[in-house]
Amino acid sequence: MHGKLKVSVIGSGNWGSCIARICGDNTKNSKTFEKEIRMWVFEEKVNGRNLTEIINEQHENIKYLPNVKLPDNVVAIPDVTEAAKDADILVFVLPHQFVYKVCESLKGVIPKNCRAISLIKGLDFRDNELALFSEEIEKILNIPCAALSGANIASEVAEEKFSEATIACSNVDRDGPLFVELFTASYFDIRVIGDWRGLQVCGALKNVVAVGSGIVDGLKLGNNAKAAVIRGGLVEMRRFGKSFFGGVHTETFFESCGVADLITTCAGGRNRRVAEAFVTTGKPMDVLEKEMLNGQSLQGTLTAQEVHDFLKQRNKLDEFPFMTAVYRIIYENQPPKIIVECLRSKQSFN
Amino acid sequence: MHGKLKVSVIGSGNWGSCIARICGDNTKNSKTFEKEIRMWVFEEKVNGRNLTEIINEQHENIKYLPNVKLPDNVVAIPDVTEAAKDADILVFVLPHQFVYKVCESLKGVIPKNCRAISLIKGLDFRDNELALFSEEIEKILNIPCAALSGANIASEVAEEKFSEATIACSNVDRDGPLFVELFTASYFDIRVIGDWRGLQVCGALKNVVAVGSGIVDGLKLGNNAKAAVIRGGLVEMRRFGKSFFGGVHTETFFESCGVADLITTCAGGRNRRVAEAFVTTGKPMDVLEKEMLNGQSLQGTLTAQEVHDFLKQRNKLDEFPFMTAVYRIIYENQPPKIIVECLRSKQSFN
Repeated sequence: MHGKLKVSVIGSGNWGSCIARICGDNTKNSKTFEKEIRMWVFEEKVNGRNLTEIINEQHENIKYLPNVKLPDNVVAIPDVTEAAKDADILVFVLPHQFVYKVCESLKGVIPKNCRAISLIKGLDFRDNELALFSEEIEKILNIPCAALSGANIASEVAEEKFSEATIACSNVDRDGPLFVELFTASYFDIRVIGDWRGLQVCGALKNVVAVGSGIVDGLKLGNNAKAAVIRGGLVEMRRFGKSFFGGVHTETFFESCGVADLITTCAGGRNRRVAEAFVTTGKPMDVLEKEMLNGQSLQGTLTAQEVHDFLKQRNKLDEFPFMTAVYRIIYENQPPKIIVECLRSKQSFN
Repeated sequence: MHGKLKVSVIGSGNWGSCIARICGDNTKNSKTFEKEIRMWVFEEKVNGRNLTEIINEQHENIKYLPNVKLPDNVVAIPDVTEAAKDADILVFVLPHQFVYKVCESLKGVIPKNCRAISLIKGLDFRDNELALFSEEIEKILNIPCAALSGANIASEVAEEKFSEATIACSNVDRDGPLFVELFTASYFDIRVIGDWRGLQVCGALKNVVAVGSGIVDGLKLGNNAKAAVIRGGLVEMRRFGKSFFGGVHTETFFESCGVADLITTCAGGRNRRVAEAFVTTGKPMDVLEKEMLNGQSLQGTLTAQEVHDFLKQRNKLDEFPFMTAVYRIIYENQPPKIIVECLRSKQSFN
C-alpha cells in the first residue's frame, strides 16, 4: 500500500453529515486511512455566514444536522474538485439531481485507482431506462462504485441508536473490508453483499410501497391489510429487480437494504404520511406537497410514475398490480380501496 | 363426488368463531359443501345459560366474538364426537393444549376419506423434538392435514377488513381448490403453498421475534433498531426452518404466513406489549402475566424457552444469536441491550 487512503465525502446534507461523522471517527486513528475527511459542502449563507466556515469552526452542520458534533478531522470544502482531488475513496451522498453535474466536474480530477460508493437514493429514469446511480458514476468516472443502503433514518443514526446497513459491491473481497472499516460504528453495523443492483432497486421502490401503506392507513384498514400491502410490495420489488436487472438475488431482500428498510419506511416517513393525508383530506398531491413538504416533490409518487411508464412501455403492467394501483390512485383518480383489491389472489384451480 | 362435503369446525374461540363465520357464508349456497357447519363449542355457562344454546339462538358467540353475527347455518354442538362425526372436512382451531385429547376422542369417529386443516398456533415441544400440529393430527387420525396461517388479527377479520392468509398442504392440486372455496371471502384472500412445515414454523417463531421487538420498544431504540430486530428474527426463522425441518422453502417467507404475519405481530399484539413492559417496569415476567394477561402464559417467551432448549441440546445456540438473546434477557437476567448487540455482524475480512 502506497501510504494511507484519502477519503472525500461528496455531499453534506442530513445523511451526508451523519456519514461524514462516522467516517471521521474511523479515520482519526487509522492505519488504513488518512485522518482528514474532506467533505464537499454546497456553499450557502446561514445567519449571514458561509456554511463551510461554520462547519469548520463549530464542527457542526447547523443547517442540516444541528446539535450533533462532527469530528474536527472532517473539513468542509466549498469547491467540489478541490474536495475530491486525489481522493482514494469517494463517498457520494447528495440529492440525485446533482449527480451528473458533479460527476462531470470530477472527470480528470480524481486518480485512476480511486474507488467510489454511492449513498444516493433512487433510480434514474432516463431515455426510457431505469439507471442505477452507482453504474452511472462508474461510467462517467471510469472507477468502480459500490452502494450503501439500509434501514437508516438519519436522525436515529445521528443519535447513535443501533442501525444496520448493507453495502453492495461487485468485488466483495477487494472492496468489502475497506468499506466495512470506513463505515462501521458501534451503533452502525455493516454487512457486505455482491448484489448492488438489488440493493438500489430496493432503495427506490420501497418509497412506492410506503405510498401504498399510507393509503391503507388513510383508509383505516388496519394491521392485517397494511402487512398485506407491505408483503405485496416486497414481492413486486423482488419481481421488478429480477425481471429488469441482471444479478438480483433473493438474499438481498433479507438484508437491511431489503425488508428492514421497507418496514422502517412503511412505519414512518414522509411518503407514508403524505399518502395518508391524500386519502383522508381528498386534496390533490401538489397541494399536499405545498402544505406538508414546503413544495418539495414526494419521492414515492414520482417513482410510482416512473415505474408505471417504464412498465407500460414494456407491456408489463399486469405483472405489477400493486405498483400499478399506487399509480392509478395517485394519478388517475382511481378509488383508494383498489390498494388492497389489487392484492387479491388470482390463483384459480378451476 | 358422493354428495356434498360436510364441514366441522373444532373450536369456537375468537379465531374459531371468525373462521366458522366465513365457512358458513361460503357453504350457504354451495354445490360443493353441505350448508350446515357444525362447530364444536367447549360448553360453559355465560350469564347462567349454556354457550351453545346462546350461539344457536342468537347466532352470536357473545363470550369470544361479541357483536358479530354468525350465519344461522353454523350450529354449535357441545359434544366433540357428535360435532365431528361423518365430517369430510375437519377444521381444527383450538388452543394447542387441547389438541391431543380432542384428537384421541375422534379416533374411529371420523371417516377414512376425511381431510383436516389446522389453524392451531405454535409448535409442540415434546420428547426433545418440535412437532408440527398438522403432522400430529395426521398421525393420530390417519388423515391428511393442511395448515392455515397469516397476518390475521381476528378482530380485524371479524370487522371484514381486508386480510390475506396462507394455506399449506402436501397435495396442493387435490386439496387447494377445496380449501380456497371454503375459506375465501371478499375480505379474506387465500394463497395456497406446498410448504406446511415452513408455514407452521413461522407461526410459532414470530412470537419470539415479537418479544424481541417489544424489548427494543422498551429500550426506546427507534425504528432502525426495530427493523433490524425484525429482519434478524426473520433470518433466524428461516434458518431454523431450513435446519430442522425438511422441505422448508424460502418462498414461504414471502407469503402472508411469513413476513406479513411477522410484521403484524411485531407492530402490535400481546407478546410485543408485555415484553416492552418487562423492560420499562423491570417487573418479572410472571408478575406481568398476572397483571397484563390475567395470569395466562405469554406464548412468545414460552416458545423462546422451548427453542432455546431444543437448540442447546443440539449444540446450535451459536447459529441463532437473536433467539438466544431473547431467551437470556427473559430467563437469565441478561441486559436487554443485548437484543441489538447480538445482531452485530461477525463478518470479518481480516
